[in-house]
Amino acid sequence: MMTRLTQLFLRTLRETPADADVASHQLLVRAGYIRRAAPGIYTWLPLGLKVLRKVEAIVREEMEAIGGQEVHFPALLPAEPYRATNRWEEYGPNLFRLQDRRENDYLLAPTHEEMFTLAVKDMYSSYKDLPATIFQIQTKYRDEARPRAGLIRGREFVMKDSYSFDIDDEGLDAAYSRHRVAYEKMFTRLGLDYVICEAMSGAMGGSKSEEFLFPTAIGEDTFVRSPGGYTANAEAIQTPTPEDVDFSDVPAPAQIHTPGAKTIATLVDGLNAEAAREQGWSAADTLKHVVLKVTHPTEGESLLVVGLPGDRDVDLKRVEAALVPAEVEPASEDDFKAYPELVPGFIGTGHIGPQGRKDEDGNSVITYLMDARVARGSAWATGGDEGGYHTINNVFGRDFDVDGRIEAAEIREGDPAPDGSGPLELARGIEIGHIFQLGRKYAKALGLSVLDENGKARVVTMGSYGVGISRIVAALAEEYHDEHGLTWPIQVAPAHIHIVATGKDPAIFEAATQLAEDLDDAQFDVIYDDRPKVSAGVKFADAELLGAPNILVVGRGLAEGTVELRNRVTGEKRELDIAEASQLITDELTAQLLDADA
Amino acid sequence: MMTRLTQLFLRTLRETPADADVASHQLLVRAGYIRRAAPGIYTWLPLGLKVLRKVEAIVREEMEAIGGQEVHFPALLPAEPYRATNRWEEYGPNLFRLQDRRENDYLLAPTHEEMFTLAVKDMYSSYKDLPATIFQIQTKYRDEARPRAGLIRGREFVMKDSYSFDIDDEGLDAAYSRHRVAYEKMFTRLGLDYVICEAMSGAMGGSKSEEFLFPTAIGEDTFVRSPGGYTANAEAIQTPTPEDVDFSDVPAPAQIHTPGAKTIATLVDGLNAEAAREQGWSAADTLKHVVLKVTHPTEGESLLVVGLPGDRDVDLKRVEAALVPAEVEPASEDDFKAYPELVPGFIGTGHIGPQGRKDEDGNSVITYLMDARVARGSAWATGGDEGGYHTINNVFGRDFDVDGRIEAAEIREGDPAPDGSGPLELARGIEIGHIFQLGRKYAKALGLSVLDENGKARVVTMGSYGVGISRIVAALAEEYHDEHGLTWPIQVAPAHIHIVATGKDPAIFEAATQLAEDLDDAQFDVIYDDRPKVSAGVKFADAELLGAPNILVVGRGLAEGTVELRNRVTGEKRELDIAEASQLITDELTAQLLDADA
Repeated sequence: MMTRLTQLFLRTLRETPADADVASHQLLVRAGYIRRAAPGIYTWLPLGLKVLRKVEAIVREEMEAIGGQEVHFPALLPAEPYRATNRWEEYGPNLFRLQDRRENDYLLAPTHEEMFTLAVKDMYSSYKDLPATIFQIQTKYRDEARPRAGLIRGREFVMKDSYSFDIDDEGLDAAYSRHRVAYEKMFTRLGLDYVICEAMSGAMGGSKSEEFLFPTAIGEDTFVRSPGGYTANAEAIQTPTPEDVDFSDVPAPAQIHTPGAKTIATLVDGLNAEAAREQGWSAADTLKHVVLKVTHPTEGESLLVVGLPGDRDVDLKRVEAALVPAEVEPASEDDFKAYPELVPGFIGTGHIGPQGRKDEDGNSVITYLMDARVARGSAWATGGDEGGYHTINNVFGRDFDVDGRIEAAEIREGDPAPDGSGPLELARGIEIGHIFQLGRKYAKALGLSVLDENGKARVVTMGSYGVGISRIVAALAEEYHDEHGLTWPIQVAPAHIHIVATGKDPAIFEAATQLAEDLDDAQFDVIYDDRPKVSAGVKFADAELLGAPNILVVGRGLAEGTVELRNRVTGEKRELDIAEASQLITDELTAQLLDADA
Repeated sequence: MMTRLTQLFLRTLRETPADADVASHQLLVRAGYIRRAAPGIYTWLPLGLKVLRKVEAIVREEMEAIGGQEVHFPALLPAEPYRATNRWEEYGPNLFRLQDRRENDYLLAPTHEEMFTLAVKDMYSSYKDLPATIFQIQTKYRDEARPRAGLIRGREFVMKDSYSFDIDDEGLDAAYSRHRVAYEKMFTRLGLDYVICEAMSGAMGGSKSEEFLFPTAIGEDTFVRSPGGYTANAEAIQTPTPEDVDFSDVPAPAQIHTPGAKTIATLVDGLNAEAAREQGWSAADTLKHVVLKVTHPTEGESLLVVGLPGDRDVDLKRVEAALVPAEVEPASEDDFKAYPELVPGFIGTGHIGPQGRKDEDGNSVITYLMDARVARGSAWATGGDEGGYHTINNVFGRDFDVDGRIEAAEIREGDPAPDGSGPLELARGIEIGHIFQLGRKYAKALGLSVLDENGKARVVTMGSYGVGISRIVAALAEEYHDEHGLTWPIQVAPAHIHIVATGKDPAIFEAATQLAEDLDDAQFDVIYDDRPKVSAGVKFADAELLGAPNILVVGRGLAEGTVELRNRVTGEKRELDIAEASQLITDELTAQLLDADA
């Protein structure tokens, strides 16, 4: 296909848009690929749409290669199926909800487990119909609290979601493995690095899940890897429970005066300076109490105190992952006012969890959860529950207890891998794929069973598999750019070649037009800069910004019978005889495309 | 592409689904092309999606052929641009509205004039950037009061919408003509009959518009044609104003007793039987007063009395078209109670319009509009404004007046064409395309102007052009089916050929598999019925139901070295030598595809 710049709906920008904070977002807007319509909602301009469609096509091919059947479900869905699985409530404010003119509840679907389950229930009834893998490439909606980074975290976005249906666990394992392999292939074909990480299942439910992360410093997800090959999303790390500590030598707890020590740093200073110095207390020996407000979509708001070593911060994303589907935020001043037993800066163990108030059902009014890495029997300096005082020798399990455990502390570079495979290295990434073994949760909730060989009804087991199609476009732009603009891999580039005609000589435009038409006829995607009154400098800058992998310059050299083929990434130049140019470029582009697909 | 029935997500139904009232809906559900997810909201199953994509591809090609640039706008849009053009309010209950978590107003777009206008404003600034034609193929939403007939009137549907931007009227005319030609080509390529009709612009606004209707008895739109070539949607017919009638011979109005004559029929009987017989009154000489409730999205509810000849019914669709964006329905008993001066069955001219009550601004409380075909000066029998009485010799313009004119009466077979081109013939159709000259309405409302050659700002003039992609799938199914199932034209069929392997002989399945693979390799779309334990009868019935244009039977004949190629529509059969079958079928399918594209 040939796209002439005199016709293309395009305007490139020299300045970086004010609201774009990452390179991919900046460049996709500057190069005229996308435009913002509302927070987290983008319009695909012609070049962006071409890239999106090429990404879709590669994903589709790999899904069809594992027997996936493509369908297309509505985005606007009735509430009932999502009520049956509780997700109507559990999604909380992340779900776009609306009513139709008859005041029936509808939603804009963030994912389609319910509808696929019901479709299979509607159409299939026997084990002979299984296994089945069904997928769609479709627009999804999620009312993100903080849409960011352009296409990376949007509120309207394109996903490939597929679902597998099997009669037994072996079938599910096989479907899961097939998807895992298909994902490896598709990301490789797309030219995207990826790391496969253990992941939390989150709002999906289900037993096992892995994420495909594209490693990048601007990623929202933190993941870890160990020398022994362990990889996991930081949210998913399960810290092994430490062995109980012998506390028989620990003296009874004592209150010490620590005026002004409202923070861990000053506390440690205070402890060192005063009563605790001789005991060698350090920040790691203080037990920090972090007060959080938990908002559960169905159970409402509650207060949570997390206990963790004083030298660690709470990782709110880990806490949220542990408390799905609740949202978690630091407690506000108003929250503290509502619980006067919590003395800011000096929260001890005396009035929280089992030591605190109880509601009418006998549950703690202030839930107290201990970080997974804190051993029972360990002794701590904690707040003294009194302004200006701390308690030392406060032993977990002897002097106080908790309501439960939680994975709350941040993971740090060098922490041991939970499987013993060595110290963890931390990195950041963008989730580009996620595969889940859902098991029978949705099938049970919605009544999907089939008859087995013996005519007995068996609940079907399911997998759910997602790929962030629009997010991949951003990941590609993040990976493939330089200081001049985008540098698309040929298999996803909006054009295989960008032809620049420079100067005013009509012969130049004639030759360039002929080459553009030849390459179009040869089924290549061509951008042809046929703008008559634009300077060569502007044309080259635009070509580099748009980022087609090959740039063909038809200009002064034509008088000597040559044109110049440039590699966008390496800058390497080749002079081609005009008589052979069409054939040589065809050979070159064919070779590049074959190479990309190898 | 090859689709094996052992893998395809499909279940055909022998029974007609209870909620499907037209053939296309019944067959598309029975043959497993679509499933209903909610009223007017459908899931595309694999075969349906294949047809949809082929329709899209043809529409896309014709749009690209006239220089259209494809983009993709969000479906979820902020309210502001639609407030700027008043459509946020004017769409009334037809618009799906929602709020995000910050309580900002959003809508699910029914059409994108505002967004395209803003995009061009954002990116273009000079006459040199124009003309521009931009299009998308995208999912749209409309909260229809009465979704019906499957895909024909849905609430979530796929449209191609394009927009032209020009600096002057000549440019708009040219863009409009290019679209008109492109539409003729695409509908012809799709194998769909069409009639181009004058149309109302409706909620779009703008000056000129034409509809492409697919003629079918189940259509929702009524259109007319005359021997002289006039065609129009019945809603759009502008009845010529009749000349004034000389009423100098008409006696003064008189009240006559017409007990029990609450309907026109009994009134005419009554009139004939009593005082009016000698004057030759007929139903056509009575002036019927129809009371309607008008609900305007911004101005609220009001009562309207329409006057029209007693032998004509009111066509509510014509009235609504005349009163866009209001909705119109017959007045209810409660409405009558609120206006006691209206005596049901005997509504006269004494208390309505200029003769009735006035509001504080001096406007009629009960609006009285006269149908366009009633001449001033004509004399009528009307209700007497008193139970059991009618008024005769009631002259329009002498004895009573109205607030205005309206196109309200039904159009009838044989009515004269407004352009004098002969008697009208009536037919029904489905709107598959609509082209509008919007003019400068949206550009003005949203501030889209560009600088002309002289550096002066000029408001851009626009056109808007729609094609109902998902509706076309239904229209095709409506046109192409017989008593056994669907009979797709090859260019939109989900498969070019449907291969049926019958019996149990493994040699048959091997031969059929080989042929399926050969044809798949030759880039044909193949459905291969490889189900091992399904009877030949069921397989043939399914093949006919699914409706691929060619059916290849690999069965008993194989022992004699032959397979059988059947034409789905004509039933014509050809025996092919198995050795040559692959080549002969390739030739045949290639010929059919070329023929369809000619």
